[in-house]
Amino acid sequence: MSGLAARAKDEAVARRGILFVVSSPSGAGKTTLTRTLIEKENNLNLSVSVTTRARRPSEIDGVHYRFISMRHFEAMRAGDELLEWAEVHGNCYGTPREPVEQALAAGRDMLFDIDWQGTQQIYQRMRSDVVSVFVLPPSAAELKARLERRAEDSEEIIARRLRNAAQEIPHWTEYDYVLINCDLHESFAQLRAILTAERLKRIMHSDDLETRVAKLLADLRQIAP
Amino acid sequence: MSGLAARAKDEAVARRGILFVVSSPSGAGKTTLTRTLIEKENNLNLSVSVTTRARRPSEIDGVHYRFISMRHFEAMRAGDELLEWAEVHGNCYGTPREPVEQALAAGRDMLFDIDWQGTQQIYQRMRSDVVSVFVLPPSAAELKARLERRAEDSEEIIARRLRNAAQEIPHWTEYDYVLINCDLHESFAQLRAILTAERLKRIMHSDDLETRVAKLLADLRQIAP
Repeated sequence: MSGLAARAKDEAVARRGILFVVSSPSGAGKTTLTRTLIEKENNLNLSVSVTTRARRPSEIDGVHYRFISMRHFEAMRAGDELLEWAEVHGNCYGTPREPVEQALAAGRDMLFDIDWQGTQQIYQRMRSDVVSVFVLPPSAAELKARLERRAEDSEEIIARRLRNAAQEIPHWTEYDYVLINCDLHESFAQLRAILTAERLKRIMHSDDLETRVAKLLADLRQIAP
Repeated sequence: MSGLAARAKDEAVARRGILFVVSSPSGAGKTTLTRTLIEKENNLNLSVSVTTRARRPSEIDGVHYRFISMRHFEAMRAGDELLEWAEVHGNCYGTPREPVEQALAAGRDMLFDIDWQGTQQIYQRMRSDVVSVFVLPPSAAELKARLERRAEDSEEIIARRLRNAAQEIPHWTEYDYVLINCDLHESFAQLRAILTAERLKRIMHSDDLETRVAKLLADLRQIAP
């Protein structure tokens, strides 16, 4: 690469950020895929949810969740400070709006590991900023085998996860993309390709690109009139 | 990967093929990018144009072009057998329609290395099958430097290529994606990511995926009622 090309490369085209939503039933491989993506990709942060449930010993406040009081949660919800929220077994979970909007405006992308209901809520508020991916297991038998291989859940919990999967999977049609996760390596490459392509798509609509092409054309006409 | 996953992986989801159009001014790196893509990607063939110009010694009939008579070309054009065509310096060039339509129906993708005018003609006939990418040089000075480094063209021809570039580049806005080719390795990864993501997008609309998910759900409800 010449010096000129290196300089141009340093100046990435400014664009609006992406809300990159990944959903799947438990056991389809979503957590591994999204964790690897966060590790490998620059300019992509995981959205940290707030929750009213108690912190588990393994969890770090501000990393796994922001742990807040019910009163605080209610105030956020009433003040329209949550992009999406849900109540599960008496505990409340939500996505704070402000860090997301800051990231978008700064051209940073945010990764959301949420279910179809959270996805629907985010669609309602900022559909054009969202790119959504639904991860499917290759088969029912393989999903069951994966949950069993984890060896962390009782038979009863595995059966509940499978029933939940049957509730979640019909919502695949509401997503922009579907991955059938047969092979983690291939699925990761596909997930990353989606992010890369959608970033490029957003560059099409950036004023920055228009300015750059205008300069390129002006320079060309000067060196080859 | 378990045996079940391996079996599922072998059964790629059937979908309609893509017309993958890549355009750029001479010297922006398009030929290297598309040649590498053809080498690395399965299920992607380069569209072979017909032409009425004489075969050069280095060219192979059916590989670089199909060399046909003007009478044959006229008959193809009259019979609506060309997806796009152009006359350049008295020679005619065109893209035969039939191999393209066969490829699309069979779920094979076709790569087109054509200019903005050819792209417009293909848009008019099958816009929804097209994914188009415009490759930009990082700067006017870098484009000139690349053309000079090739050391195959006279100063006069380089000046003409630069003037042609100034004619071609304003059409970037008519494409689905733009790449600024600062670094070949990065641009290749981006081009490949576009193809991967657009293939996944087309899978969303395949009957095959619907059938598979229906089976997945039926199986799930059976093993976890």
